Amino acid sequence: MNPLESLFNPKSISLIGAAHTEAKFGGIILKNLLRFKGKVYPVNPNYTYLMGLKAYPSVEKLPESVDLSIIIRPAPQVPEILKAHKDKAKCVIIISSGFAEIGEKNRQDEILHIARELNIRILGPNCIGIYNPYQRLDTLFLSYERLKRPKKGNIAVVSQSGAILSCLFGAIRKTNIGLSRAIHYGNAVDIDESDIYEYLANNDETRVVISYIESVKEGRKFIDRARLLSEKKPLLILKSGKSSRGQVAAYSHTGRLAGRYEVFHSILRQFNIKEVEDFDELMDAAKAISYQKPSPGQRVLILTNGGGSGVLAADECMRQKLEVAPLPEKSLKILKPLFPSFCVLNNPLDLTAHARDEDYLTALHELKEDYDGFIVISLTGVTGITERFIDLLKDFKTNTPKPIVSHIAYDSISRKLTLLLEKIGIPVYPSPERAVRGLKALLNPSPC
Amino acid sequence: MNPLESLFNPKSISLIGAAHTEAKFGGIILKNLLRFKGKVYPVNPNYTYLMGLKAYPSVEKLPESVDLSIIIRPAPQVPEILKAHKDKAKCVIIISSGFAEIGEKNRQDEILHIARELNIRILGPNCIGIYNPYQRLDTLFLSYERLKRPKKGNIAVVSQSGAILSCLFGAIRKTNIGLSRAIHYGNAVDIDESDIYEYLANNDETRVVISYIESVKEGRKFIDRARLLSEKKPLLILKSGKSSRGQVAAYSHTGRLAGRYEVFHSILRQFNIKEVEDFDELMDAAKAISYQKPSPGQRVLILTNGGGSGVLAADECMRQKLEVAPLPEKSLKILKPLFPSFCVLNNPLDLTAHARDEDYLTALHELKEDYDGFIVISLTGVTGITERFIDLLKDFKTNTPKPIVSHIAYDSISRKLTLLLEKIGIPVYPSPERAVRGLKALLNPSPC
Repeated sequence: MNPLESLFNPKSISLIGAAHTEAKFGGIILKNLLRFKGKVYPVNPNYTYLMGLKAYPSVEKLPESVDLSIIIRPAPQVPEILKAHKDKAKCVIIISSGFAEIGEKNRQDEILHIARELNIRILGPNCIGIYNPYQRLDTLFLSYERLKRPKKGNIAVVSQSGAILSCLFGAIRKTNIGLSRAIHYGNAVDIDESDIYEYLANNDETRVVISYIESVKEGRKFIDRARLLSEKKPLLILKSGKSSRGQVAAYSHTGRLAGRYEVFHSILRQFNIKEVEDFDELMDAAKAISYQKPSPGQRVLILTNGGGSGVLAADECMRQKLEVAPLPEKSLKILKPLFPSFCVLNNPLDLTAHARDEDYLTALHELKEDYDGFIVISLTGVTGITERFIDLLKDFKTNTPKPIVSHIAYDSISRKLTLLLEKIGIPVYPSPERAVRGLKALLNPSPC
Repeated sequence: MNPLESLFNPKSISLIGAAHTEAKFGGIILKNLLRFKGKVYPVNPNYTYLMGLKAYPSVEKLPESVDLSIIIRPAPQVPEILKAHKDKAKCVIIISSGFAEIGEKNRQDEILHIARELNIRILGPNCIGIYNPYQRLDTLFLSYERLKRPKKGNIAVVSQSGAILSCLFGAIRKTNIGLSRAIHYGNAVDIDESDIYEYLANNDETRVVISYIESVKEGRKFIDRARLLSEKKPLLILKSGKSSRGQVAAYSHTGRLAGRYEVFHSILRQFNIKEVEDFDELMDAAKAISYQKPSPGQRVLILTNGGGSGVLAADECMRQKLEVAPLPEKSLKILKPLFPSFCVLNNPLDLTAHARDEDYLTALHELKEDYDGFIVISLTGVTGITERFIDLLKDFKTNTPKPIVSHIAYDSISRKLTLLLEKIGIPVYPSPERAVRGLKALLNPSPC
């Protein structure tokens, strides 16, 4: 069994620093743990009961050894509290900050030393922990009133920043996708991104992994695990701390040096691990991969009923090293009589404002063999686009396993069409460029 | 009087090709013209009345000469229809396609020749025309049911693509900003982007101009007018057709060659005219400039309660050539005792998840003289952020005319906070990077 099972799927949890009120982080976490399917033991010497649960005065007094213990007490107390966990926990999450990130390197070394002695794994310190909707396990000190959680799904989030993890929660909720696991590993004194990749590689509830990284602890181990993971399922990495100021900020944030970005970047490319540029691209790519399977190739067909939107998509394809290849001669001959004379047959194929639902399908069916991925731009301000569009695309998608994404601009019926399209597994984006960046995650852009 | 007044502020309009049903573009336009404050004369030989208005059998039979005539008839008929406008109209919008964009260059030359002879200005052909909410003037063949219109405001949209214009309507509605004018000039046989810039430079209802361009008709005229405009008010340009495939698409879309992008780009830079990279940045920048006044300088202070979000913002500042300068020594001494020990004083200044509303203001007041612009990142999953945050920022903004933008992640209270912040003139963005790109439009990034 992977040792991280006791972290992600514990049967029992203790919370050291549990509080009676949500004005304290220890109270928010306890409240969130009330949802957990297994046993919860709050520890606080000043209370007999906390939020309806029997409280325990100390770790030593816990009635059983737990799978997971969560510590949220001031940093100077943490080493002693950890020692008290001898034979009491398999894994500990240290939420508390006040370690290497503020220069307290010795204190951080000390807790690692204690944990090794006691054969306990540590997540953190300086972290918000984990979220596993499949177990209703939630160690975050963020209330549900303030930060709603995404639904169950197939995306795992691995983040070196708690803030980014919380922002990803919002962004994931806004799309129609869901989470399998979320984890913030903070200073990573013990469990790091590589260990988590190894666990997720074999986790059946996870089909896609997205990872926010400021700095890597052990380069060789990281590359090894990232490769293994990305051979099994898509892994998308957002690396920050690329700028000198970003590196300074990352250092004070996690107590680790970011290192030269160029080196990191070229290693990822060498092993064909997908990297995204910024927060929005991370979400756009994650959405594409959550809905559809990647496919080899780089030839893109752009279908549009708005000329300018097609031009912007073509420009973005160039920036992203995707190929917007011209229509094959044989198809030109077949398609010409099927479209009005003012419709110029090209790629992007501009069906013009006169386009009807069927026109898209006519083009897609004729050209499906010649391209690796499809961008369908449907501006719904014109009357030719109806809900039939969805049924036709559904048919096409069933018969063609190649990636297909869509751009629908925000207007009166866009919300409804977006929901319907995403229901049949076609991700929808609010601009042509973002649709291209989504599709890119499913294809293989040319090497630079 | 600028000759484009009869286009943007007509007193009377005729519609050649008016229809009785919204199943036809001529019916949609007529329905939209029913909102217009002035007189409307539908022309269609088959009807006595159309949508409650008296219809006229031909241009010749119009009861008076109109300021503006709109033609939506098949392209081969357009030259004759135009000739019939002798002494009947000051300006004509030719909605019809079927000119240079499909290779019919002679037909396009012919209508220009006729219009010159008759002293009539032409907008189009192959365009959707204009929208002026101040006059309730709307020539678009897009129904209100399908495409809602933005409210009145201070942004003018000048677009070479009707599709992009319609997408901008949606995007503008989604933010809390409004429109002064919108215009799609299509093939621009006569009135082009430069003429429109000249008009907008002196239009008091317009404070900001955003312009989507695929190709420029006359380079020297364009530079001249763009400069004059950008000296009076902010002008943001999105140039497409940058890639070879994009150029092909742009050509078939407007019948004009896009030219080498590098040349265009370097000319804009030389004259300090602001250019954006893609559709999303156009909106992000437009929003910033609609709310606030630009300011010289490039030194940015990043305030955050989430470490990772600050790192991403710092990285984006580097990409956008904005300077994330360290905190001045004197301020470090003053601020140190005011914040908890685990708060590392730096830029980005990470107030951590413990941040309260006042902490932002303490930092802003101390540092306001040392920076040119401010990015306030407020992740509201933590409980320290309340609505008081808005009042405090309002006070600060009243006393400090420097640009300030905000990033609030999507979560439970984000929508409310966003509305409140934008009400006091602080634009809010859904990611750290987009906030930086918004702020960039208000500052002067270093030359590359």
